[in-house]
Amino acid sequence: MEKGKAYFMKGCEVVAEAALRAGCRFFAGYPITPQNEILEYMSQHMSERGGSFVQSESEIAAVNMVYGAAAAGIRSMTSSSSPGISLKTEGISYMAAARLPGVIVSVQRGGPGLGTIQPAQVDYMQAVYAPGHGGHRCMVFTPSTLQEMADVTAIAFEKSERDRNPAIILIDGCLASVMEKVVLPEAIEPPARPDWALRPIANTPKAWISPGWMNPEDLEQDNLQRAEMYMRWQAEDVMVEETGLEDAEIVLTGYGTSARSAHSAMRALRARGIRAGLIKPLTVSPFPVESYRKLSGGVKRVIVVEMAIPGQMLGDVQAACDVQVDYFARAGGVIPTGEEVERFVLSLLEQPADAYREV
Amino acid sequence: MEKGKAYFMKGCEVVAEAALRAGCRFFAGYPITPQNEILEYMSQHMSERGGSFVQSESEIAAVNMVYGAAAAGIRSMTSSSSPGISLKTEGISYMAAARLPGVIVSVQRGGPGLGTIQPAQVDYMQAVYAPGHGGHRCMVFTPSTLQEMADVTAIAFEKSERDRNPAIILIDGCLASVMEKVVLPEAIEPPARPDWALRPIANTPKAWISPGWMNPEDLEQDNLQRAEMYMRWQAEDVMVEETGLEDAEIVLTGYGTSARSAHSAMRALRARGIRAGLIKPLTVSPFPVESYRKLSGGVKRVIVVEMAIPGQMLGDVQAACDVQVDYFARAGGVIPTGEEVERFVLSLLEQPADAYREV
Amino acid sequence: MEKGKAYFMKGCEVVAEAALRAGCRFFAGYPITPQNEILEYMSQHMSERGGSFVQSESEIAAVNMVYGAAAAGIRSMTSSSSPGISLKTEGISYMAAARLPGVIVSVQRGGPGLGTIQPAQVDYMQAVYAPGHGGHRCMVFTPSTLQEMADVTAIAFEKSERDRNPAIILIDGCLASVMEKVVLPEAIEPPARPDWALRPIANTPKAWISPGWMNPEDLEQDNLQRAEMYMRWQAEDVMVEETGLEDAEIVLTGYGTSARSAHSAMRALRARGIRAGLIKPLTVSPFPVESYRKLSGGVKRVIVVEMAIPGQMLGDVQAACDVQVDYFARAGGVIPTGEEVERFVLSLLEQPADAYREV
Amino acid sequence: MEKGKAYFMKGCEVVAEAALRAGCRFFAGYPITPQNEILEYMSQHMSERGGSFVQSESEIAAVNMVYGAAAAGIRSMTSSSSPGISLKTEGISYMAAARLPGVIVSVQRGGPGLGTIQPAQVDYMQAVYAPGHGGHRCMVFTPSTLQEMADVTAIAFEKSERDRNPAIILIDGCLASVMEKVVLPEAIEPPARPDWALRPIANTPKAWISPGWMNPEDLEQDNLQRAEMYMRWQAEDVMVEETGLEDAEIVLTGYGTSARSAHSAMRALRARGIRAGLIKPLTVSPFPVESYRKLSGGVKRVIVVEMAIPGQMLGDVQAACDVQVDYFARAGGVIPTGEEVERFVLSLLEQPADAYREV
Repeated sequence: MEKGKAYFMKGCEVVAEAALRAGCRFFAGYPITPQNEILEYMSQHMSERGGSFVQSESEIAAVNMVYGAAAAGIRSMTSSSSPGISLKTEGISYMAAARLPGVIVSVQRGGPGLGTIQPAQVDYMQAVYAPGHGGHRCMVFTPSTLQEMADVTAIAFEKSERDRNPAIILIDGCLASVMEKVVLPEAIEPPARPDWALRPIANTPKAWISPGWMNPEDLEQDNLQRAEMYMRWQAEDVMVEETGLEDAEIVLTGYGTSARSAHSAMRALRARGIRAGLIKPLTVSPFPVESYRKLSGGVKRVIVVEMAIPGQMLGDVQAACDVQVDYFARAGGVIPTGEEVERFVLSLLEQPADAYREV
Repeated sequence: MEKGKAYFMKGCEVVAEAALRAGCRFFAGYPITPQNEILEYMSQHMSERGGSFVQSESEIAAVNMVYGAAAAGIRSMTSSSSPGISLKTEGISYMAAARLPGVIVSVQRGGPGLGTIQPAQVDYMQAVYAPGHGGHRCMVFTPSTLQEMADVTAIAFEKSERDRNPAIILIDGCLASVMEKVVLPEAIEPPARPDWALRPIANTPKAWISPGWMNPEDLEQDNLQRAEMYMRWQAEDVMVEETGLEDAEIVLTGYGTSARSAHSAMRALRARGIRAGLIKPLTVSPFPVESYRKLSGGVKRVIVVEMAIPGQMLGDVQAACDVQVDYFARAGGVIPTGEEVERFVLSLLEQPADAYREV
Repeated sequence: MEKGKAYFMKGCEVVAEAALRAGCRFFAGYPITPQNEILEYMSQHMSERGGSFVQSESEIAAVNMVYGAAAAGIRSMTSSSSPGISLKTEGISYMAAARLPGVIVSVQRGGPGLGTIQPAQVDYMQAVYAPGHGGHRCMVFTPSTLQEMADVTAIAFEKSERDRNPAIILIDGCLASVMEKVVLPEAIEPPARPDWALRPIANTPKAWISPGWMNPEDLEQDNLQRAEMYMRWQAEDVMVEETGLEDAEIVLTGYGTSARSAHSAMRALRARGIRAGLIKPLTVSPFPVESYRKLSGGVKRVIVVEMAIPGQMLGDVQAACDVQVDYFARAGGVIPTGEEVERFVLSLLEQPADAYREV
Repeated sequence: MEKGKAYFMKGCEVVAEAALRAGCRFFAGYPITPQNEILEYMSQHMSERGGSFVQSESEIAAVNMVYGAAAAGIRSMTSSSSPGISLKTEGISYMAAARLPGVIVSVQRGGPGLGTIQPAQVDYMQAVYAPGHGGHRCMVFTPSTLQEMADVTAIAFEKSERDRNPAIILIDGCLASVMEKVVLPEAIEPPARPDWALRPIANTPKAWISPGWMNPEDLEQDNLQRAEMYMRWQAEDVMVEETGLEDAEIVLTGYGTSARSAHSAMRALRARGIRAGLIKPLTVSPFPVESYRKLSGGVKRVIVVEMAIPGQMLGDVQAACDVQVDYFARAGGVIPTGEEVERFVLSLLEQPADAYREV
């Protein structure tokens, strides 16, 4: 590929290629729709870069192989979709416990259970608040364009490694499948093996990677350090895109595919003379609390657009906001259109917003 | 056992015996500390009641066997501790999707990862907000005494069956292991096979149990119905114990083992002339929002006692409360004592409460 | 069912019902064609007899659950077909090592690999010579009618328990699927728990069941005792049916479905005035060596009929025989007909038998 | 390493390094004593050669990954010890069915079951007659020195690929662990992808790899072709070392570690003036039938030395021989010494050989 040139690519390919360019040299995964093209791309291109691709026996095997590769200091990734992410939660928690970096791509589909194979945003709470037992947290990146996907992938690897904590790229089946023009970042060399990583040669200084503690007091200290890390994230690592907030009376907000519908609606409302703005989180853990908190008195309503019923990001917006929060959602695999969002906002402006969702 | 008489029993035995008395006739589980005595008790006593006990090949097998037994209309249960619950989340989500009842006992220990085998409360967010992918919810019962454990177990089965949705009993390694006097409820006969359940005989009316949908619109309708169910829970199924709220200036709150420490502290503070009260949720999903919301101006502070760092129930209390919320926690397997909580409250009353936790 | 009355039943049902009547009170299995009706029957009728049926997570889980139930002194069974039996071989070897009884029904289909789902006899060597690593042996029963299947099932349980060694009932997809009239044996009560079995109550004399040895010399002694057991089998436990050997010039031999074709051919040849006889082993481990060894000079040829290419039982017949051994086989799921066998024999009588098989 | 120079290496290292030099570029395995050093060596050195090493989730995963890599035309290997080989038998049968090459190293230990971790030869029947269900066969190589191990490894890969059929290198825990001087073969480049192999690029001619058949007649044809292949092996691929047969009155025979004891005994007997010879099979499938069949009238006895009770190779020798066959064995992890074998032979020469084994 030519440097700096835009290529027309599919979402799954973008996140895979961006990971390879970010120095990812190990990928293990297990097939599940709608993210199989990530495995497919990795299976074709990982070995060209000198890395290893494994289609594992199970979702559990995949995440534990990532644990192993990460312990050896290799930039590693796995990906799955909703049921598969549930199966990986034990392993993600073990990675966090052992202070191992690694990137997990979670491609949400309709749920619960087997659900549907169409896109949804119903795994937000899992990614943000319970990516495994134990109360640990991961950074959660929420790109809404393929260009953003290319960009946050490298950041996810870097911050995951900085923090020695797994990071999640939370997308959905729509972003995984659409095609857009993307300028890919330049490929970097995988970084040198970190000091903490395990080494293959016997007679080197001892390294120790473990997901367990003998002593509750030691684990309590660990939990405290983790809590401090989460506070640093809040202070330093929030990524958010704000549009039109300077004069907005209505603020739309959403992430990923929902942000695209919200953005369309915002432009349509502006064309009608309604001063709409948009808050688009690119990280939801840490959550861009400040973007909502600072909304001035001129803002009458914040409208959360989500592909989840009941709302999930909704709660985080409500906790951050002092103004009235409304909510428009489709779920089960149905994608809200910009027109639907626009009509919902128009209806709100004429009448009190108590409808659960527009039908 | 003699009817109506109190017996001195261990937590694991209480939840197991109470389940049998509630008509539970299938249990599948896999060993993990600190909840092995539930399996042990079930392995000894299930067959006496004519039911089936299976020590399965894995946590995943266990929850899927419960899925199967529940689909056949049998009152069914499984149990595990933190890493094991993560492994079960896919199955719990499938149970919810297929509209199957069943009770999951989650015995929390220090985390993340392998963590410790000592008690903790770090799986609250998982139980309440992400017991599997897909955004489904379970009722979550949080007894703090063995008597309450005996009592909520029967309720968990009944409501789970009423709603055709899995229910969680969320305890910790301490409640699982302590011994207390308990009056067990009388045994009931397992209820007749529900109409929706699968039947073994070929030539009966067709039953259909499935965790998937072909059509996104159908799943969206399902998600809406679920959201309405969660609202009904909020209106009708909250269980909470309030103590001393009529004159309280300080309100302690916590669930499970933390509630016991909070209760000790409350009594000690009252003995010092400080008007302390207690809110003890027996369900955290639905959360007793009203108990916190109604706190009058006389209450200066609400203090959340939790075995989790960072706080987990803390967020729910903050969202429900208008008064200042403080937070005292130990974690990693360390249990906060009543004295620690008392000293923390005393320190608060003399100085601004910004300490993360008392050391 | 009425005592002593013949019922028209399917092979899978016969072996399942005969096992229940022989006191089998535990069955674990995993579905694979062509033996699913064994699981189906057990799932419907095991609980009526007070026993437990488990459809396990995998073939491996199934055989290990049988290991566990057998260790508790319960008459136990599992069944599978070719690929599934391979997966069970580790467990069968563990059962033998731990000196545990139990019955494995092996329903052969075309192989290797996934093969076909039609009947074959290509797992004879596995059953007789390598039912798992370690060189242990199992008694292998080879009924050729459903009545024999009903009869040997009880014998398999008894001898397995007498020897504390797993036994195999080796049939094929044809016998599993055909329907015939069968008089089932009367049901017996499951025998009392053997002294060697594990007990559920803690304060009883210690029992010890283990598939391993710390000391090579101890395992060598075990191997010697096993070798003596195999010699006792040879002396005492052979089951075989001999027909027309008194005047035979041609002896047909085969087991299971092949024995049926051989029997048809024998009658057809007799009708033509050719003095044909039949040796039909009902056990192939121990192998009825004496039946072949004793064949007098009047016998010109022994013809092995087998659904296996290359021959498997063929080698055992050749090792036991002094007369010329010929071989007629179909494989891959094709069943040899009586006419084919007859034509093969006729062709042999006119010309030297060097054709690999008749086409 | 210097070309043509002898290096002092351990058995596991020799087979691993020889595989790499033979162009093996994929290895998947799971730890089990006494063959962990094969995995260890591969984990350290595979990536240097540009290949992939996977420590898999299970024995089953390992063999199926070898299936996958072989299907892609990569020279592939796995290894295990007795219980692990049982678990791999399904996969080996699938490889045979799909006509895939690949090398399986079987490091025998005491059995059955968990057995011991000391060396034995009790998996001969499994390797030769039932390396999986379905009646398929593998070439089985039986080196008895590390130099032979280095040499047969390359041959195993070549013949496995020539035949598109998995091959087994059958050793034991002793050969795996001893150290000897070895001149390793020169490394070759992995051969070009065979025409039949799957390709990663979509728009190439279709390849089809499948372990199943829709049609019994097609599978029967496959079985016939396989039978012909086994006959070609017998004609062309036997490897055997014969020593002193020209004047021998006593012929010792054994493979692997037993062959070493037999060789010591032969030399000691010759030193006493007894004309002893040795037949040492380097392949046991195909079995060197001719070496035994041709033994002239001068040979009074053939003595099989085996680490298996009851004998396993013994049966093949008896079937091939017209002279009297005696048998000396140790088992369970006990290795027969040259002196034991010598004393056994001396005792035979003075008295009828009816002792089961010398004590």
